[in-house]
Amino acid sequence: VTLARPTLQHHTPSPLPAGRRDFFAELIDRARALSTVPVAVAYPVTEVALSGALLAAQEHLIRPILVGPEAGIRAAAAAASLDLGATAIVPATDEDDAAKKAVSLCKSGEANALMKGSLHTDTFMRAVLASESGLRTSRRVSHVFVLDAPSYPRLMLITDAAINIYPTLDDKVDILKNAIDLAHALGIVEPRVAILSAVETVNPKITSTLDAAALCKMVDRGQILGAVVDGPLAFDTAVSANAAAIKGLVSPVAGVADVLLVPDLESGNMLAKQLEYLGGAELAGIVLGARVPIVLTSRADSARARLASCAVAALCARAASS
Amino acid sequence: VTLARPTLQHHTPSPLPAGRRDFFAELIDRARALSTVPVAVAYPVTEVALSGALLAAQEHLIRPILVGPEAGIRAAAAAASLDLGATAIVPATDEDDAAKKAVSLCKSGEANALMKGSLHTDTFMRAVLASESGLRTSRRVSHVFVLDAPSYPRLMLITDAAINIYPTLDDKVDILKNAIDLAHALGIVEPRVAILSAVETVNPKITSTLDAAALCKMVDRGQILGAVVDGPLAFDTAVSANAAAIKGLVSPVAGVADVLLVPDLESGNMLAKQLEYLGGAELAGIVLGARVPIVLTSRADSARARLASCAVAALCARAASS
Repeated sequence: VTLARPTLQHHTPSPLPAGRRDFFAELIDRARALSTVPVAVAYPVTEVALSGALLAAQEHLIRPILVGPEAGIRAAAAAASLDLGATAIVPATDEDDAAKKAVSLCKSGEANALMKGSLHTDTFMRAVLASESGLRTSRRVSHVFVLDAPSYPRLMLITDAAINIYPTLDDKVDILKNAIDLAHALGIVEPRVAILSAVETVNPKITSTLDAAALCKMVDRGQILGAVVDGPLAFDTAVSANAAAIKGLVSPVAGVADVLLVPDLESGNMLAKQLEYLGGAELAGIVLGARVPIVLTSRADSARARLASCAVAALCARAASS
Repeated sequence: VTLARPTLQHHTPSPLPAGRRDFFAELIDRARALSTVPVAVAYPVTEVALSGALLAAQEHLIRPILVGPEAGIRAAAAAASLDLGATAIVPATDEDDAAKKAVSLCKSGEANALMKGSLHTDTFMRAVLASESGLRTSRRVSHVFVLDAPSYPRLMLITDAAINIYPTLDDKVDILKNAIDLAHALGIVEPRVAILSAVETVNPKITSTLDAAALCKMVDRGQILGAVVDGPLAFDTAVSANAAAIKGLVSPVAGVADVLLVPDLESGNMLAKQLEYLGGAELAGIVLGARVPIVLTSRADSARARLASCAVAALCARAASS
């Protein structure tokens, strides 16, 4: 498992067109309406790491359980003028210890979601994926970007642009199932999934077109449930009914995709970053396929993106327990 | 290119149930109604090889052009008490020369189909597939068994059980297109094609299920035209609507397959031979994908199977020129 989320410059999303639904605000409202989800926050000893969790608590999205050296956590709070109030703290000596204890809280059921603080991603994910003590399930772990792009009239889920580098077809089955579960948790009853490639036709030399065909047939046969899936689709036909019409493509997904399943991490990461940096999109993110949803916020995330990520985690946690 | 058609014991097909359509008789009638097709017969110097061509000529299915040593041809005719009448003979010195000259007649348009006589299959096919002088097209060459099995209410096409050993997906595209063209030539307007495997679900470990999914999506996208295609299907669901219903499988092909595209030569050959030897089926056969249809009768074929193969070749030749 790798994580391709480099440190970003802080980025301001474009304002939404007047009258346009604000999907992030809707997600946050939706999560706020649920009972507050206990979230283990591993090693939040910097201002950025701590403020995300505390802000989400203020908004009644989560109830953080801070796991790390108490002195370090309190110092970070003081430096940022944050009030810890009655926030629970579970002492841990270092990054590794904090990761393991936060994972353990999720395993025991004391926490229903996990959030990365200011420790190294490798240390964090090693604890998550440890074969005995970790949070693995039979599902492969995968990442989903949850995007609100002003130029697209739907919430957009992009997967996997952060964890699985060159997913096999078997991996893509789990990536797809994870994304469908997430869409359901976010209130998208029957998500439309585009399996992306560079073309709409099946080309034996382009693996992503073959994988797309296989995933579609798995859906036909009921091996994957809960979504309308089509592919291969190129990005244009996935998001534009007009492009599909010009190409003469008849597809129940073309132009109305909720989920974009990308061929690999490189193409997916470029797609997500392009939408963020040139398309004015706001990005939240979530890691799925473990026993609890995992928030992997980046230092560059805006406060609203952090809140949205916590809302997504809370909605997933509540969907899993319902 | 290999040819897996071992010498068979002469085999008597089961009688058709009373009132059941006789598909071979229909094919022969259909071909007889067309203008007679000139067929180059390579090296017919045995009684069996010669009688097949002459019988088809008697029935007004083909007009044979016998290519081989004239003395040998006349000796075979005399031994079998066959009357050559005005049948054209193009002299050739040996097997290799006869194969090349027969191929050349097809290339020049003097013949519209090719029939193997009593020469070695390797010698024959080498002339057919020679890169400059042969009959290759952009399509891969493939074989189709045309079966009438008394227990199945449709004519059945099985491909490729004789030439392509382990076809790739690219090969299967051509095998499928050849079979669809053949079905059209035989009067099946919109053939139902089952892409066979051992299961109905997509299993990344079973290549034939992945190939099936890819072929279906190619049909969805208009890359392959003129047929209703579904797969993976197991043999039972391909030929039995009841088996499909019990499995809860919804498929436009299940139970009504006209064409069975098999995973590879081994499974296909066993399937065809099982239908012939234990299922009482009559088998004709044709090689497609070359510039003309090619008849590769076996010494074990019944007179009616030989006639049916000639009828199939004639129908293909006329469809290609229409």
